[in-house]
Amino acid sequence: MEIPDKTNCPIKRTTDVVGDQWSFLIMRELILEGPRRFKDFEDVLSVSPNTLSARLKKLEDAGVIRREFYSTYPPRAEYHLTEKGESLKPVIGAMYEWGMGPGLKQ
Amino acid sequence: MEIPDKTNCPIKRTTDVVGDQWSFLIMRELILEGPRRFKDFEDVLSVSPNTLSARLKKLEDAGVIRREFYSTYPPRAEYHLTEKGESLKPVIGAMYEWGMGPGLKQ
Repeated sequence: MEIPDKTNCPIKRTTDVVGDQWSFLIMRELILEGPRRFKDFEDVLSVSPNTLSARLKKLEDAGVIRREFYSTYPPRAEYHLTEKGESLKPVIGAMYEWGMGPGLKQ
Repeated sequence: MEIPDKTNCPIKRTTDVVGDQWSFLIMRELILEGPRRFKDFEDVLSVSPNTLSARLKKLEDAGVIRREFYSTYPPRAEYHLTEKGESLKPVIGAMYEWGMGPGLKQ
């Protein structure tokens, strides 16, 4: 791991996309469960609709998830991982492993 | 990756400790550079002293870093990774790898 220029650091770039708890948990849901609707996230995460909406928008803008409409009337969408989102699996996997480790497993 | 009980999820446990950008960047500094003083973090991260102080306290309380005094008068401390903190390297490493990937490398 070498970071010659810390103002343009790969770890920072990653946390610019997924750098908060909700984003990690949203990614967890999509990785574990597959495509999810807004309500699916609401059911599992104790998150306000506004915050959830903002996080989904941010992840969509970053290209790691995409919204797909599966019904036009009424408009209904579900969220999918993109290829770029799939490539975040090792990050989420490493967090899973650490969370299973001594002193954290409960 | 199996998560039977999502209210006690290993990924959530990890993000309870390092679940924000500053915590990841603090861990990056300690992993890359070794023991750091408060001022060292201030010099590299554009973070307010209050926020930095709160993040360091949280990481210390979680047992991933420890504060060590190397001078009594005046009191001067530096922050070290604990063994538990060292074990976060695969997480930070995976974030580094992803941040170097296509569409993010700049």
